[in-house]
Amino acid sequence: MAYTRKWNVAVVGATGAVGQQMVRLLQSSAIPLANVVLLSSQRSAGATVAFGDAELVVQEATPDQFTGIDIALFSAGGGVSKQLIPEAVQRGAVCIDNTSAYRMERDVPLVVPEVNAHRIADHRGIIANPNCSTIQLVVALKPIHDVLGVRSVVVSTYQAVSGAGARAVAETVRQTQAELEGRSVTPDVLPVASLPIKHPIAFNAIPQIDVFSSNGFTLEELKMVNETKKIMEEDIAVAATCVRVPVLNGHSESVRITCARPIDIDAVRTLLAQAPGVVVVDDVQNQRYPLARDASGCPDVFVGRIRRDLDDAHTMHMWIVSDNLLKGAAFNAMQIAEHLTKQEGARS
Amino acid sequence: MAYTRKWNVAVVGATGAVGQQMVRLLQSSAIPLANVVLLSSQRSAGATVAFGDAELVVQEATPDQFTGIDIALFSAGGGVSKQLIPEAVQRGAVCIDNTSAYRMERDVPLVVPEVNAHRIADHRGIIANPNCSTIQLVVALKPIHDVLGVRSVVVSTYQAVSGAGARAVAETVRQTQAELEGRSVTPDVLPVASLPIKHPIAFNAIPQIDVFSSNGFTLEELKMVNETKKIMEEDIAVAATCVRVPVLNGHSESVRITCARPIDIDAVRTLLAQAPGVVVVDDVQNQRYPLARDASGCPDVFVGRIRRDLDDAHTMHMWIVSDNLLKGAAFNAMQIAEHLTKQEGARS
Repeated sequence: MAYTRKWNVAVVGATGAVGQQMVRLLQSSAIPLANVVLLSSQRSAGATVAFGDAELVVQEATPDQFTGIDIALFSAGGGVSKQLIPEAVQRGAVCIDNTSAYRMERDVPLVVPEVNAHRIADHRGIIANPNCSTIQLVVALKPIHDVLGVRSVVVSTYQAVSGAGARAVAETVRQTQAELEGRSVTPDVLPVASLPIKHPIAFNAIPQIDVFSSNGFTLEELKMVNETKKIMEEDIAVAATCVRVPVLNGHSESVRITCARPIDIDAVRTLLAQAPGVVVVDDVQNQRYPLARDASGCPDVFVGRIRRDLDDAHTMHMWIVSDNLLKGAAFNAMQIAEHLTKQEGARS
Repeated sequence: MAYTRKWNVAVVGATGAVGQQMVRLLQSSAIPLANVVLLSSQRSAGATVAFGDAELVVQEATPDQFTGIDIALFSAGGGVSKQLIPEAVQRGAVCIDNTSAYRMERDVPLVVPEVNAHRIADHRGIIANPNCSTIQLVVALKPIHDVLGVRSVVVSTYQAVSGAGARAVAETVRQTQAELEGRSVTPDVLPVASLPIKHPIAFNAIPQIDVFSSNGFTLEELKMVNETKKIMEEDIAVAATCVRVPVLNGHSESVRITCARPIDIDAVRTLLAQAPGVVVVDDVQNQRYPLARDASGCPDVFVGRIRRDLDDAHTMHMWIVSDNLLKGAAFNAMQIAEHLTKQEGARS
């Protein structure tokens, strides 16, 4: 009789916007759990978090906490990942990292399971979770690419404040409330907490997410460009404009896709409807299309407004919406963890 | 000694979101005014509006009200324009129409003065004011087109609720307030007041403005496609995705422009900085770019995030923001009226 292997899992950044979702999803995951360890910065350590029938105390993340851990889910910022992932790997943990710290490193698989689950087995201790805005894009691109050959993508995003963390959500609520009462509040988080200049997000649209590169694109935009190529394993030309809008949760994307082969829109709709992780919401005569508020709380990628370009038979447009904390972060990481435990369980 | 001609001007829809701006701008315009007549639906008639030192009583718009009127500014919906503009023209008024009723008619000039003021003289009683989202686009496209030859445009919009009128603004405020208090409010205006299905705009992004055409594009999107070609007098391929966001006033646009000639970004920045009606706000290292909240209340078109495409030397991207009630509507109409009075004044 084969014993089922059980797993010791750590969540690093357990009190953050994504970390909280990771803890929640872990409770209902298919992973057979032994111990669960919740880690955070010194500041948040000591908090208690309900986990099933238990109450777990969040502990400060230090190298020794990873002794005996099989899988560590990291979502505490790039600095923490750079500092602690090598320590965790050295102690035998496989790290699934939600930050951008290791995503573009050659020997780190960058995984969206619906697209490239086969890469999980290549890991050398680190598997990177892509950027939220990239994940929902490639889930929709992959089934199209397999049939029509995607050549180029132009994407403009409508990104929710939850993508910038719990402080950004709190700022948006506080600022919006003040605005409605005719009071003014000095912005102090968005667009980028670590930069000196802040802009109001209440009733505004801010065309900056992350810092600017010398080529005029933001790092968020370049993540979409570079991560898409790596995940799709194809030199797809991607142009991105990433914009923060006063939506609390759920990223939307206006996407133009040009393919090698001419496009039959009904066939594309069928392709997408059959694709894993995709839900087609596309009945415009009845005003049905994906909306951030509807997608929030759901693990799927919602696609609608699918239509052929007016001038080019090889080009189409669509509207892609997903919960950036779930499929864009915690849920995708949990899918990777589940694949990993199945693979490693089968191997042991 | 030459007497300066004075003008009798009517504003139709004087109590609406755009009409109020028209009345405000008329008070400080360069047009020598004789009488000003404010007209509205029967429902709004009787309201009083301050005009300089006077108080004007808004009157119900009927055909006979146009007797003696030289210029009539219409912004009361397409239905009112279709019904009353022929009556006004018959009575000798030149009508500047802010609705879509006559825009694509062959013998109606569609005018953005910075782009095609020369068309004003061609009028046969009607001059059309383009759609808000088109106006700010073509003001930025024109100086680029003159030097580089614009071939195609891909635009995704972030449109303010004021573009859907005062009721949509009130709904957004009311709904957002309710949301912050944990109450739910049934949407009843957006996305399209005349259609049965409504969606919440508070903390959401709605990819529908105006009704859908059978090709999957909305009429708002097709306005951008068709009006751009007519105003620019060039067969530029335009693909648009128009999205309503919870911004009270000021439309933003993420725009990709492909040109016949290769692009020198510094030269484009200089071109735009020298172009009439354009203000370049583009210093990303200091986090300066146009924002809807900054543009609201200003008559200019603000352009920033100007950058070359990563893959194509003929393509660039930019972020274009303007006050949709001003340059997008009332201010553009007033510019047309001022050009008209100068031309006709010179002729008489």
